[in-house]
Amino acid sequence: QMLKGVLSYAHYLLNETVNTGELAIDATCGNGNDTLFLCKLVGEQGKVIAFDVQEQAIHNTKKRLAEEKRDNVILIQDSHVNVENYIQPGETISGAIFNLGYLPKSDKSIITKGESTVTAIQKILNYLKEGGLIVIVVYHGHPGGTEEKNTVIEELSELEQRDVSVLRYDFINQKNNPPFLIAIQKNKR
Amino acid sequence: QMLKGVLSYAHYLLNETVNTGELAIDATCGNGNDTLFLCKLVGEQGKVIAFDVQEQAIHNTKKRLAEEKRDNVILIQDSHVNVENYIQPGETISGAIFNLGYLPKSDKSIITKGESTVTAIQKILNYLKEGGLIVIVVYHGHPGGTEEKNTVIEELSELEQRDVSVLRYDFINQKNNPPFLIAIQKNKR
Repeated sequence: QMLKGVLSYAHYLLNETVNTGELAIDATCGNGNDTLFLCKLVGEQGKVIAFDVQEQAIHNTKKRLAEEKRDNVILIQDSHVNVENYIQPGETISGAIFNLGYLPKSDKSIITKGESTVTAIQKILNYLKEGGLIVIVVYHGHPGGTEEKNTVIEELSELEQRDVSVLRYDFINQKNNPPFLIAIQKNKR
Repeated sequence: QMLKGVLSYAHYLLNETVNTGELAIDATCGNGNDTLFLCKLVGEQGKVIAFDVQEQAIHNTKKRLAEEKRDNVILIQDSHVNVENYIQPGETISGAIFNLGYLPKSDKSIITKGESTVTAIQKILNYLKEGGLIVIVVYHGHPGGTEEKNTVIEELSELEQRDVSVLRYDFINQKNNPPFLIAIQKNKR
């Protein structure tokens, strides 16, 4: 009954969009929380492709998935800008999530950057089903965070409104730069 | 399944919050659409107090309510800054809605203003139940709209996060300054 928090709203939207048997993308798998969440949404017949540039993240996610006995994930230690190298011809993505910022409890100098984030989003949009969704949780309190936030907002504001709806979901009276959400949904024709 | 539009999301949130038998406020009744919506939410045992400074708006709303045979509305031709003059001692508000801007098909020079909007919001907050909600649909394409928008965002960003959550729900890739939503929910203790 209360307004959903940013993380809870991100999961709520994905849950409304991603169905059993579909393909979902975790663009920044980090400690594997969202990878596991997507895994449950697509089920045994579906597939998740999870990216991270850091070995530690891939390791943590692999461990997390093993604990939960999930084997429908392809884990890729590469930048999400190369996402199209890992999509099969004819495949369609139903949902994707980005967590912008740095890997929690890790090297804070290794951060996502605005331009590569936007490039990856544009590539995923090419494969997104109608009604499909990309959610971006924008952490921006760290050094470099403001620049990335501004780039992402500017670039995503330019996306054609015929093609996609870009929603900003943001609690504006909170201290300490909490994350906000951007949700991009591909319009139905 | 698609992302809800701003008006639809405003009604969705009020529907989640306002129950039968409660008191709701339409701070800007205009042509009566939201007054009627709130009427249905509170039902015969509830009450709606609807404000507008313009005679035309009161007239239109009265007509609309008569057509729908609704008689649980107190229509008040006065500024919503005087809201507390019309609340009985001990009464609690469960939900309120503001539509900022001018009355459609009417004199565009008669507009809501940032400072009085914020004053009225603060007064309503004093009477709001825990978990209660104020939704503000911010139209800002008209002359004076940008100033009001900026004042409202600045002032509401300063509300104490212990007391309330202030959410901005805004489609950022749309042309022609479409309205966005601010939703203020009183936290539970």
